[in-house]
Amino acid sequence: MTGSLDPTVVARAALSRLFEPSDTVGLALTVAAGPADALLIATGQAPVGTAMAREVAGQLESHGISGRPEALREALERWKPRVADLAPERDLATLERLGGILLTPESDLWPQALDDLQLSAPSCLWVRGDCSAGLPELNRMAAVVGSRDSTAYGTAVTGDLAAGLVSRGYTVVSGGAYGIDAQAHRSALAAAGEERIMPTIGVTACGVDRYYPAGNEQLLRETARRGLLVAEVPPGSSPTRWRFLQRNRLIAALCAVTVVVEARWRSGALNTAHHAAGLGRVVGAVPGSVYSANSAGCHRLLREGSAVCVSDAAEIAELAGPIGTEWVPEPEQRAAVHDGLSVEDLLLLDALPVRASTTVDKLASVAGLGIRDVLAGLSRLELSVLAERTDDGRWRRGSTHRN
Amino acid sequence: MTGSLDPTVVARAALSRLFEPSDTVGLALTVAAGPADALLIATGQAPVGTAMAREVAGQLESHGISGRPEALREALERWKPRVADLAPERDLATLERLGGILLTPESDLWPQALDDLQLSAPSCLWVRGDCSAGLPELNRMAAVVGSRDSTAYGTAVTGDLAAGLVSRGYTVVSGGAYGIDAQAHRSALAAAGEERIMPTIGVTACGVDRYYPAGNEQLLRETARRGLLVAEVPPGSSPTRWRFLQRNRLIAALCAVTVVVEARWRSGALNTAHHAAGLGRVVGAVPGSVYSANSAGCHRLLREGSAVCVSDAAEIAELAGPIGTEWVPEPEQRAAVHDGLSVEDLLLLDALPVRASTTVDKLASVAGLGIRDVLAGLSRLELSVLAERTDDGRWRRGSTHRN
Repeated sequence: MTGSLDPTVVARAALSRLFEPSDTVGLALTVAAGPADALLIATGQAPVGTAMAREVAGQLESHGISGRPEALREALERWKPRVADLAPERDLATLERLGGILLTPESDLWPQALDDLQLSAPSCLWVRGDCSAGLPELNRMAAVVGSRDSTAYGTAVTGDLAAGLVSRGYTVVSGGAYGIDAQAHRSALAAAGEERIMPTIGVTACGVDRYYPAGNEQLLRETARRGLLVAEVPPGSSPTRWRFLQRNRLIAALCAVTVVVEARWRSGALNTAHHAAGLGRVVGAVPGSVYSANSAGCHRLLREGSAVCVSDAAEIAELAGPIGTEWVPEPEQRAAVHDGLSVEDLLLLDALPVRASTTVDKLASVAGLGIRDVLAGLSRLELSVLAERTDDGRWRRGSTHRN
Repeated sequence: MTGSLDPTVVARAALSRLFEPSDTVGLALTVAAGPADALLIATGQAPVGTAMAREVAGQLESHGISGRPEALREALERWKPRVADLAPERDLATLERLGGILLTPESDLWPQALDDLQLSAPSCLWVRGDCSAGLPELNRMAAVVGSRDSTAYGTAVTGDLAAGLVSRGYTVVSGGAYGIDAQAHRSALAAAGEERIMPTIGVTACGVDRYYPAGNEQLLRETARRGLLVAEVPPGSSPTRWRFLQRNRLIAALCAVTVVVEARWRSGALNTAHHAAGLGRVVGAVPGSVYSANSAGCHRLLREGSAVCVSDAAEIAELAGPIGTEWVPEPEQRAAVHDGLSVEDLLLLDALPVRASTTVDKLASVAGLGIRDVLAGLSRLELSVLAERTDDGRWRRGSTHRN
């Protein structure tokens, strides 16, 4: 592999170790100077130059971020301690051993959806798994996320949603954590069987060579084998609070819809939901018992109008937008016998006795209708078998509708 | 009582038997001619007259209802069969025996909220119970409605909501049916104890002298004794499908907020919710398990944006508007230790080892921060006891926050 490496790829690999996720100054520098020169500047091998400093400030300003003149100087100071640790060729070799590739914005396989993150977009994506066809397109990706301490209810719903999404052709994206995340990956893999589809993608806060949490190692390995593991930090990186929070924005950006299955009043899953809403993506929340603290965060999203109520995979598919001919059938389609009746006919039907029979005059009085209307209405109800005439010319409810 | 009866009251009592609920032509005639003359015309004791026919048509038109010239003639035909049954003095005497009074729009006690129903407003209200102070004002009235075949979950939630509303000074309005309605009345009565407040009002589809369903007789009697039973149809009237549907609009109109606790995909409770929304009242829906058919109607309201998600009485009070100093406290207020930290300090906190200790240089590299920032951040974290210095000048996580 050495020797044939694209210098842009190498530079971006290095920058992803130098910069923490969402280092806006770093991203602005990369945009302004290009990856290779940005690396030279960020590592102190090339001077900044007044024009470049101004361009970086301009990049920041154009994204609504205050571009103070000192920002770049302070950033250089911040990056300096990591320069000695840079070894992008080694990191890329590690990724290759794991069967992965580095995706960069310059690649045809780069998921365009990440560009919506603007100056918070990742420098590159470290992808483990078969990514030869790229990631599925935005409207085929649905995030299913939630609490680590999920309940039996949350686990069951997650399983049904993930399986239903995969069977409809969606890829289930989640964060590889315990609880809801793990169940989402597990059920997506189970629903896909050994078919050649992309059932699930795990977006990790640590390097894709690491298994965090350790208890999910087998699941994460299987996710990499039959789906993908994706991270913006290079191999070997440990998961930190900051990286967890930032990882959530990647999940939100990659998916047309993000569904929160269970979340407490304060929960990282809500952070993902807010990222999604901020990016203009659709957010869904699964309702649950008002007595369950694990549903309180979902109900909060619903109450605040930040999320749409979703009960099954079909409803999520509807939110994700069409990838085929998705639609949500109305349950309990069976119409009631009185559906579509006019007010007069409904009044008349109510007035018709179920067991005994009655006269037209009596019906007129009980229903509060004129004699002519009663006669006309009885003809219509008789046609619908809702009314029937007795042998002696009286009327009663139709025999099949005596409820 | 005879002899001293207000002729307007007697006329409206009679009209409420002649007209079915929401008989717009009847209401238009009442508005145009006044109750006494309307009764003479409606019973055929006075001619209609061209001017009056035109005024009724104009009333209908002004409310967006097509006022065909034949409308009044057809209505007269419709009302005729009931004329012989009219006995308003007898109906009023029946009500008096039950300890009730007839409220008319002319009375100071008339609930103004019903005027929002315009030409669907009731002719009068047959009220059973102590109504000497009138009904509570709109923003003290909360409807709690739902399925007859409620689940244990729905019953429990209804009980909590009704009790919580009464303890906050609200009157719980419902329809007296089995299931959610009955539990709403029952819990409201229980929460009130024998205090002199108006805990609950039952709006019935039949006369207030009847007990429907029969199994709720004791509950309805108790509701009348310590709250109110209210109907727009006179004593003796039976409940019909039409009257059930129309009764729902009264519940919706009387209350600032209508909450659906449980409802199937098709349910009468949804009808009440849609009436409420149509009147500009607030609608709440209680979430539940996605596996419960009895919550499917609530989730439908939430998904369609027709209702706000409510989990407890405090949230309903918030929707009903202020009657005192209502507010919803955020649960789980306890802040996480890292709340309010800057990005830099969060990165630094993440980098601090929990058990071992480390150097400033190493911290700078791990956190991705400059040496100066690390030193400044460590001072801040030390103040918050989030970081501590070891005897040999190294750093580690603060002893109380080693999570």
